[in-house]
Amino acid sequence: MNKLNIVILAAGKGTRMHSDLPKVLHVVGAKPILAHVINCAKALQPNKIIVVYGFGGERVKDAFSGEEITWVNQAEQNGTGHAVQQALPHLDADADTLILLGDVPLVDVNACKRLIAQADNKLAILSFNKDDPTGYGRIVRDLGGEVHAIVEHKDATQAQRAIVEVNTGIMAMPNAYLKSWLSRITNNNAQGEYYLTDIVALAVADKVGVVAEITDDEWSVTGINAKADLAQIERVYQARIAQALLQQGVTLKDPARIDVRGDLHCGRDVEIDVNCVFEGNVTLGDRVKIAANCVIKNAVIAAGAQIAAFTHIDDTAVGENSRIGPFARLRPGTTLAADTHVGNFVELKNAQVDVGSKINHLSYVGDSTVGKVVNIGAGTITCNYDGANKFRTVIEDGAFIGSDSQLVAPITIGKNATIAAGSTITRDAPADALTFCRAKEQKSIMGWKRPQKIKK
Amino acid sequence: MNKLNIVILAAGKGTRMHSDLPKVLHVVGAKPILAHVINCAKALQPNKIIVVYGFGGERVKDAFSGEEITWVNQAEQNGTGHAVQQALPHLDADADTLILLGDVPLVDVNACKRLIAQADNKLAILSFNKDDPTGYGRIVRDLGGEVHAIVEHKDATQAQRAIVEVNTGIMAMPNAYLKSWLSRITNNNAQGEYYLTDIVALAVADKVGVVAEITDDEWSVTGINAKADLAQIERVYQARIAQALLQQGVTLKDPARIDVRGDLHCGRDVEIDVNCVFEGNVTLGDRVKIAANCVIKNAVIAAGAQIAAFTHIDDTAVGENSRIGPFARLRPGTTLAADTHVGNFVELKNAQVDVGSKINHLSYVGDSTVGKVVNIGAGTITCNYDGANKFRTVIEDGAFIGSDSQLVAPITIGKNATIAAGSTITRDAPADALTFCRAKEQKSIMGWKRPQKIKK
Amino acid sequence: MNKLNIVILAAGKGTRMHSDLPKVLHVVGAKPILAHVINCAKALQPNKIIVVYGFGGERVKDAFSGEEITWVNQAEQNGTGHAVQQALPHLDADADTLILLGDVPLVDVNACKRLIAQADNKLAILSFNKDDPTGYGRIVRDLGGEVHAIVEHKDATQAQRAIVEVNTGIMAMPNAYLKSWLSRITNNNAQGEYYLTDIVALAVADKVGVVAEITDDEWSVTGINAKADLAQIERVYQARIAQALLQQGVTLKDPARIDVRGDLHCGRDVEIDVNCVFEGNVTLGDRVKIAANCVIKNAVIAAGAQIAAFTHIDDTAVGENSRIGPFARLRPGTTLAADTHVGNFVELKNAQVDVGSKINHLSYVGDSTVGKVVNIGAGTITCNYDGANKFRTVIEDGAFIGSDSQLVAPITIGKNATIAAGSTITRDAPADALTFCRAKEQKSIMGWKRPQKIKK
Repeated sequence: MNKLNIVILAAGKGTRMHSDLPKVLHVVGAKPILAHVINCAKALQPNKIIVVYGFGGERVKDAFSGEEITWVNQAEQNGTGHAVQQALPHLDADADTLILLGDVPLVDVNACKRLIAQADNKLAILSFNKDDPTGYGRIVRDLGGEVHAIVEHKDATQAQRAIVEVNTGIMAMPNAYLKSWLSRITNNNAQGEYYLTDIVALAVADKVGVVAEITDDEWSVTGINAKADLAQIERVYQARIAQALLQQGVTLKDPARIDVRGDLHCGRDVEIDVNCVFEGNVTLGDRVKIAANCVIKNAVIAAGAQIAAFTHIDDTAVGENSRIGPFARLRPGTTLAADTHVGNFVELKNAQVDVGSKINHLSYVGDSTVGKVVNIGAGTITCNYDGANKFRTVIEDGAFIGSDSQLVAPITIGKNATIAAGSTITRDAPADALTFCRAKEQKSIMGWKRPQKIKK
Repeated sequence: MNKLNIVILAAGKGTRMHSDLPKVLHVVGAKPILAHVINCAKALQPNKIIVVYGFGGERVKDAFSGEEITWVNQAEQNGTGHAVQQALPHLDADADTLILLGDVPLVDVNACKRLIAQADNKLAILSFNKDDPTGYGRIVRDLGGEVHAIVEHKDATQAQRAIVEVNTGIMAMPNAYLKSWLSRITNNNAQGEYYLTDIVALAVADKVGVVAEITDDEWSVTGINAKADLAQIERVYQARIAQALLQQGVTLKDPARIDVRGDLHCGRDVEIDVNCVFEGNVTLGDRVKIAANCVIKNAVIAAGAQIAAFTHIDDTAVGENSRIGPFARLRPGTTLAADTHVGNFVELKNAQVDVGSKINHLSYVGDSTVGKVVNIGAGTITCNYDGANKFRTVIEDGAFIGSDSQLVAPITIGKNATIAAGSTITRDAPADALTFCRAKEQKSIMGWKRPQKIKK
Repeated sequence: MNKLNIVILAAGKGTRMHSDLPKVLHVVGAKPILAHVINCAKALQPNKIIVVYGFGGERVKDAFSGEEITWVNQAEQNGTGHAVQQALPHLDADADTLILLGDVPLVDVNACKRLIAQADNKLAILSFNKDDPTGYGRIVRDLGGEVHAIVEHKDATQAQRAIVEVNTGIMAMPNAYLKSWLSRITNNNAQGEYYLTDIVALAVADKVGVVAEITDDEWSVTGINAKADLAQIERVYQARIAQALLQQGVTLKDPARIDVRGDLHCGRDVEIDVNCVFEGNVTLGDRVKIAANCVIKNAVIAAGAQIAAFTHIDDTAVGENSRIGPFARLRPGTTLAADTHVGNFVELKNAQVDVGSKINHLSYVGDSTVGKVVNIGAGTITCNYDGANKFRTVIEDGAFIGSDSQLVAPITIGKNATIAAGSTITRDAPADALTFCRAKEQKSIMGWKRPQKIKK
């Protein structure tokens, strides 16, 4: 196989996106559109990836600062041919070039491979058959099937308009040809732009073979020009992820109501109920069940764990067979060991909870180390913040924290300690002791008159 | 243009809705079906809008008490012709009349305008081409294309049944003709009803021109007769709103999973995640992000604010760059200034919170004025209700409220005051002071025996 | 009508499900696939239901231990003919047999009835017309329309491949014939399996009439072989339930976003907003409104009750005109009388709440009896658990519980008692009295210095 260069055209402004963000930085499945195209390019193992940028250039470059990319600025936007011309100085004389479009996120690696294979001493164009080809450049073939021309819709004869095979803009060719053709295209047209498709006529004139490789996956060649396109591609992308999960054996209650924005790794017999959102890197172990309406980001959830409805998880590890939610919120830095229970209206932040412990109701446990088989009563609050600094709470194995207690950090609750309900604990509580801090006596004022409604 | 009268037929019972509510009061996008039709009528700027009501009449009239409408009761429901007969006394002799259907909520103003333009000294009928026209009245045209008759399905010949152009029931004509025709239609048919469509035959007999204006938007002429229709139209209506938002540049993660029941105004670069519901009048400023599963009603959310998942907002203003949720509830009368944070399991009601203040965890703050840069700890509760009256809590700038405190209103917490965790504060707390109210000493009973499981 | 036997083929392993659970135990609408087939069989009132099981057999039998079923083990899986052979000893000599497929959950009772009616002294096959019949056994009819053969796709001629009528595998025939045919089928084929469809050729050879009953409901004959099939059938099943609810007059804001996994009974003028999940047995009375994103299991919700968004209900009765949520959680054993209010971030468990009582904010009320017109303030916690035992809390009529109180059970709060905010109540509180237990004095340390950020 020849050396391969890849040029990605990413200079478009995307006016119809109505956004301050450069078009190619809008996201599909949490990754910028251009990142999808770059990933496709990398999968083809080229010698060089050149991105032609323009509008919002610095932001685009910054977004891919970690990638090995040759950035070429197209200062004025004078058409696709002009864009590729900017890349010419960087192309290897002895390579083929694949031209990709920076706004086509679902570009298909295999179709590109087939296209490159066709480009051997030829111009190879990726095409597809469009039900309603109005507005598209038609692929005109001669009787032998060889491509004769690409005719723009407005220039097409009635007969040519009946052609449904259309140009995608993705193409490949030897660099020697490309250099020659680009030097000869002109901007003698209504828009005064240099069109890349004009090289087809030059190839035909030069008697270089022109072939069109047809793809049957329209989404893989669909560009994004407006938010409606972006939303549509997002759903196609999500539907494909859902089908891939199903194929692996994941049970999805509704494949149209799952969003995966990153990587979701699932074990065997995983069940995901409707309307869940996964972000970042999420791993679900065997037999994990995620109930309806959960939002889960950057999490490892071990085998057998059950996540009830309305659970919000971020940067957390959940141990085997744990029971989380409903209405639980696990915040960054939290790790739960096996058989832990976290119940409703409970917030954990940077809390390490050991095996078998339970925090079932209306609590805030932050910056805390919780031992084994600890029971934290309803309404417990770790007071980790004094207004300036954050301190840790340590609750040792077997402790029982009575309801509505406040543990003022830094503090340690000893092993098997019991804290009486309603206590404000400001000093360490000894192991195996009952510790309390509340008013001595309960009193009653008999025959007390409840306040009356004040007349206004 | 001639004077215009509009008659809206809204007397139907809607038996198949299986509801106690009159059919035309069921809602599409939070507005009654009939309201959509009346809005269309008003957009046509007629001299008079006449609504023929019947079933559940008073409730229908009450629902539109603010509108300038002539209400006509059709006590017995003897067909559409009979319905229009009831309106006759109110029609202006020198006007044209447009007849609209009270159960067709997506009626299209532009199609009505085109229809009215055609009604000049003619009978103009709105028609559409239906894939499966079974059951519909067919538009029979002569060779010149002029409408010859409307033939009901059951009366149609085999050839006529092949016609796909069908009657919508929406029509326009000069009142002089209408009056004459209505006086001549009969109820000599199986149902014993007076059919409005019978006027077509009379027009033809009178050699008055009959034209059919074809619409290609079937939903705009679809009537609602059952809850399945209502649900279908609701989704069409919502899909159209979603497309309009996309077109403006709003990012929607799933256009099929957003519900807008009222008016949603969006700035630039707004993002709305899946499964959000907007009700009433909602304004989202530039760069606002709404995460998944939010319910937002009558709210103004300023530029740069981020609303996390599972947030419930009602009648609230959120300031610039604020961070709300997840699991936050903002209730009526709440106003948050810029850079405020409201976190999980927090309820605000009629609370005015100034710049930079934070209420991050498990709190109830009601009937309160909160100053700048206040920090309200987890589990704080403003005790605003004594069982009879509600009182206000004032927390001045820079105050720090320790966790799990109760502030018993009416009360003022002074500037830069600190409240110790777990305090029940019943009197004003002075500025720049630490105020507390809790048991003096923390005590421990060593070697304390935890209760044992009682054997039953 | 003849005696009827039903044989259900349920031995398949379902390798493509990628699951440890036998294929027929995966659920559609919360019921195992096989349960749907058995329910269809029972509706046909047969003399006998025989299930041929194989893979994971004991688990399959256990799942239906309450059913009157003859279980037959197909130890080796040698094809569908072999499977029915295993059932032969249990078939009644004078009966007809209907053969159903254990992995076709939406099998249609009426189609089965029609099929059985056709089986009188004939072989009756259920067929359907498939748009793309590739891979399916074609129904080959003679000129008179009688079925001549079933030809497998791979054996079909070009002409036969054009046939779109295909075999479903569901069939019925007299047992005498079945016994004879099964004794004559062979495994002389590439797979070395005994195919049930081979009996068609034998019937033709025996000059027994073969008829094909066409169904137009493809889903009713669709088998489940992979999780993608399961998800697709689940959505079809849910869509049908949604349509049935609409037909009864229930208002659904989005028929594509409701999941009913069990039985949902609705009164008149019930409204269900988007994205709700119903599980088990749920009854909604007249005029009940369920807002968006609720999860409701085994509940009776009485007329006029309104359930706000994000409410999670399990095994609970809600009284008339009650107002629940948003963000409320009602756990098993809870019963709410009429006109009760349960608000946000409130958890009730095994609580009986009488008429007109309110628990509106951030509370846990468990194992409690709450009287009439009780007001439970924000942050109230019933301390029902001492670490070993659970005790009850009784709050009598008219009591007012101040915010952030703890009621340490077992305890009784007397009639019209008032508990001061922030109290830890450990002994019974007398009726008509104000009871409190908190620090005596609020103190302030003037000019107190807030902690400073520790430099690290």
